Amino acid sequence: MRLKVEARLAYHMPQQADVLLAIEGAQMPEQRLVNDLLTVRGTEPLRTVPGDDGIGRRTWATAQGDFLAEYHGTFDVERGARSLIGLPVSARPDLPAHVIPYLWPSRFCQSDRFVSFVAREFGDFDGGAKIDAMAQWIRRNIDYRLGASHGTTSAVDSFVAREGVCRDFSHVMAAFARAAGIPARLVSAYAWQLDPPDFHAVVDVWLDDGWHLVDASGLAPVEGLVRVAVGRDATDISFMTIFGYAELVSQEVCVTCLTADTVDSPTLEN
Amino acid sequence: MRLKVEARLAYHMPQQADVLLAIEGAQMPEQRLVNDLLTVRGTEPLRTVPGDDGIGRRTWATAQGDFLAEYHGTFDVERGARSLIGLPVSARPDLPAHVIPYLWPSRFCQSDRFVSFVAREFGDFDGGAKIDAMAQWIRRNIDYRLGASHGTTSAVDSFVAREGVCRDFSHVMAAFARAAGIPARLVSAYAWQLDPPDFHAVVDVWLDDGWHLVDASGLAPVEGLVRVAVGRDATDISFMTIFGYAELVSQEVCVTCLTADTVDSPTLEN
Amino acid sequence: MRLKVEARLAYHMPQQADVLLAIEGAQMPEQRLVNDLLTVRGTEPLRTVPGDDGIGRRTWATAQGDFLAEYHGTFDVERGARSLIGLPVSARPDLPAHVIPYLWPSRFCQSDRFVSFVAREFGDFDGGAKIDAMAQWIRRNIDYRLGASHGTTSAVDSFVAREGVCRDFSHVMAAFARAAGIPARLVSAYAWQLDPPDFHAVVDVWLDDGWHLVDASGLAPVEGLVRVAVGRDATDISFMTIFGYAELVSQEVCVTCLTADTVDSPTLEN
Amino acid sequence: MRLKVEARLAYHMPQQADVLLAIEGAQMPEQRLVNDLLTVRGTEPLRTVPGDDGIGRRTWATAQGDFLAEYHGTFDVERGARSLIGLPVSARPDLPAHVIPYLWPSRFCQSDRFVSFVAREFGDFDGGAKIDAMAQWIRRNIDYRLGASHGTTSAVDSFVAREGVCRDFSHVMAAFARAAGIPARLVSAYAWQLDPPDFHAVVDVWLDDGWHLVDASGLAPVEGLVRVAVGRDATDISFMTIFGYAELVSQEVCVTCLTADTVDSPTLEN
Repeated sequence: MRLKVEARLAYHMPQQADVLLAIEGAQMPEQRLVNDLLTVRGTEPLRTVPGDDGIGRRTWATAQGDFLAEYHGTFDVERGARSLIGLPVSARPDLPAHVIPYLWPSRFCQSDRFVSFVAREFGDFDGGAKIDAMAQWIRRNIDYRLGASHGTTSAVDSFVAREGVCRDFSHVMAAFARAAGIPARLVSAYAWQLDPPDFHAVVDVWLDDGWHLVDASGLAPVEGLVRVAVGRDATDISFMTIFGYAELVSQEVCVTCLTADTVDSPTLEN
Repeated sequence: MRLKVEARLAYHMPQQADVLLAIEGAQMPEQRLVNDLLTVRGTEPLRTVPGDDGIGRRTWATAQGDFLAEYHGTFDVERGARSLIGLPVSARPDLPAHVIPYLWPSRFCQSDRFVSFVAREFGDFDGGAKIDAMAQWIRRNIDYRLGASHGTTSAVDSFVAREGVCRDFSHVMAAFARAAGIPARLVSAYAWQLDPPDFHAVVDVWLDDGWHLVDASGLAPVEGLVRVAVGRDATDISFMTIFGYAELVSQEVCVTCLTADTVDSPTLEN
Repeated sequence: MRLKVEARLAYHMPQQADVLLAIEGAQMPEQRLVNDLLTVRGTEPLRTVPGDDGIGRRTWATAQGDFLAEYHGTFDVERGARSLIGLPVSARPDLPAHVIPYLWPSRFCQSDRFVSFVAREFGDFDGGAKIDAMAQWIRRNIDYRLGASHGTTSAVDSFVAREGVCRDFSHVMAAFARAAGIPARLVSAYAWQLDPPDFHAVVDVWLDDGWHLVDASGLAPVEGLVRVAVGRDATDISFMTIFGYAELVSQEVCVTCLTADTVDSPTLEN
Repeated sequence: MRLKVEARLAYHMPQQADVLLAIEGAQMPEQRLVNDLLTVRGTEPLRTVPGDDGIGRRTWATAQGDFLAEYHGTFDVERGARSLIGLPVSARPDLPAHVIPYLWPSRFCQSDRFVSFVAREFGDFDGGAKIDAMAQWIRRNIDYRLGASHGTTSAVDSFVAREGVCRDFSHVMAAFARAAGIPARLVSAYAWQLDPPDFHAVVDVWLDDGWHLVDASGLAPVEGLVRVAVGRDATDISFMTIFGYAELVSQEVCVTCLTADTVDSPTLEN
């Protein structure tokens, strides 16, 4: 399906601050870039660097006063809603070098603390079926509640509190997978049919020698996701990291399906 | 100086277990590999993958029963004890892509929680002088005590408990540096003059467009370090990760200076 | 000095909820009750129970819809700003039974984790001088910042974050004292000259066979405090605990000195 | 049944240290004291204070060098294994003053963090049936494993790790009960048929206007428990708190049923 993705971030920086943006859709298999444009106003010349694992890119800006970043992109996404069930776990010695760190715990995904729980709760499942059982468990046992978490909330916190937002659902998902020895990374994405529209956080798990998307929140279909960035947890994939202080003015995200037989047609009014 | 490094790890695996070794010295600037040999007994054929940031390498083994890994290496280390003071912080937009993730918090280095403390305590220092002040603060305020920490001890824990081992000193060091916006990574190393001899953990900070070693523990001179692996924190640089269960039989590390004017000459008896 | 204290709490309970109030000034040495009145509207008949350590009292209400609690009290407070310096630590075997639990860690005052820090930082001081040194350290090293903490913030969190409100200052103070083997309890109080006026949280330390007030925040003079409740930490001394859900409508606190030579005269307008 | 309880604690104190013992069985309803004797060697004259809630007592000793405490007691315990199911929750305004603090979170029982989980998992049960469901959940979901926890392990830690010892089982039990608004306190006890014999930790919950024992570990029958001390969590009920440093030499506990029709007859050899 052809997706049009748009984001507009307006902030105010009282003093000069470095800003690291990660809002551009990634050109990669399953999501072919048709065209896109990032424009940033109120900033010095931009510099870009590749994202983690070579996926997508980060853009640096140095801003003061009013800051406006706008992104428009069109992507042809061909990703079937393939079931994970049946996908085998890859033999560990076959893991590519870049995948190995996704076995380890991270700031917000303390997989080392879930080893017993995961063995006990999901020990009867293998490979993709194990991931599927984890996603179902999360959906059944954790409530989606806006405001339930803040910047330092970790997978352990969400597992205890039993509530969170997409970031928290994905942290728990990645922590569970890693605790079972399955590599998992966080993914930021534009998500078709996400309501209300916003940046979304989902998980890539490494099965059958490749990455496969899982959305433990179940809030949007994986067929309609456009990956932006990947990393160990929320910090790595933040769409905007500000080194300094900034006031939010407004922030909008919009994802539209342009394929003929779809009916939705919202857009960010310019 | 020419250093001979040796390690011997003997374990027993009651059931088959995957083992990931990171005990080979890295071939890289400042530490030229003269020759080395890793031998592993009691295991299936080995497979190697590059380490994080392309430094060193990891070796997979699948073992059952008695497991013995031995490593011997000779390195010419030319690394002056250059003072960090005077080295400038690199402009953030100039950071190479692979360095950016070392700005973020990690499982054991929760730099996001130290921002206020670091600004308050080290705000008057810049660049290398700031790192130097941090290392001195750590040496003055945290006691080295064997047994003070365990596998889940983090920088926050050590900062509160005011005691730890080299792993903990380095976690606090990296957390402080990142909290000040200076990239920092953990480094495992063979360390000449470390007493008792063991694998050592130190920190690389990114200043003046390059990585620079800091040993907040002050237990061994940085001129005598042979880097093995780098990563975000202790998990990434573990010299041996066991997927399964293993009993420690014995473990020895030995570092000898072969340069003429040195007098020490311990060795692992074979 | 004669102090007039007033509080008015207006809430809305969509469903029936039990409410436990602790807003009445305590009748006790150093603060003689002249007269007071608690009125509660929108509730079933009230029931009262003594507070912890027999100090003050708690009042139960069962409310639904609009809830309004008003308290007016007049107290003669005779409490000199006596210096703690010189007061000896009481021999542990002489501690009264009710004081012993204040040696232990509590939910928000994890004194067990500060033993090394306290020995290292305050080991040169004795008795009241040690408490004084702790209060000064806290004032120098922790910033007062509204919004810095939330309901689950503990002394360890505040010690790391280096910011907090009066609740957090007092948690750190009590944790330090207990870590040094000096009993300490949290105290809620009306505080003359606190700006902006609000319920205040301070600490009682047990020295020289008696409780002595310490305000690590330094925001109000201890001579002008009217104790309301005491306990192990913020939970025990909460001025209002709601078992259910309530919306805050408004909340005001006012403390006035009625003694002739004072000039302030704010009051809650009725 | 008539129970003989014995404990012998041998320690060595290199320097003088205050010791607070809580190893004497309590004289109270359901466990009538027939006779008992506490002897302590290697110490200055002892002093005793009542325990929390007036149950049992604590004994202070000041020791240096070899320290030996021995306790022998005989109790007639008449406590049926009454089912909790059917017992109603007491109306909150009817709670006696001393019971109210057992509604609050404590150092190791962070009930405030389990409110959502408890509502979700046990919301369909009432009163004693809710407590029973909690105890069963704990027994099913947490593994008993010696060495699984250490001195700073809390209910949150055990809930995540899914393993612990009797102390941890009881911390989770008390945290769950308090999160449901049911007062709960920790209880140290001598336990008949506990294997291996040791001090035991169980929980008292307040239902139907009285305290009722629950052993979430299921390791010993509640009919054979002799309460020693009660409190908010493990700290309050510790059988021996040492202010200073002590080396464990040996420690033995023995509980024997003296009633005619029982067959066990172990004893501590003197």
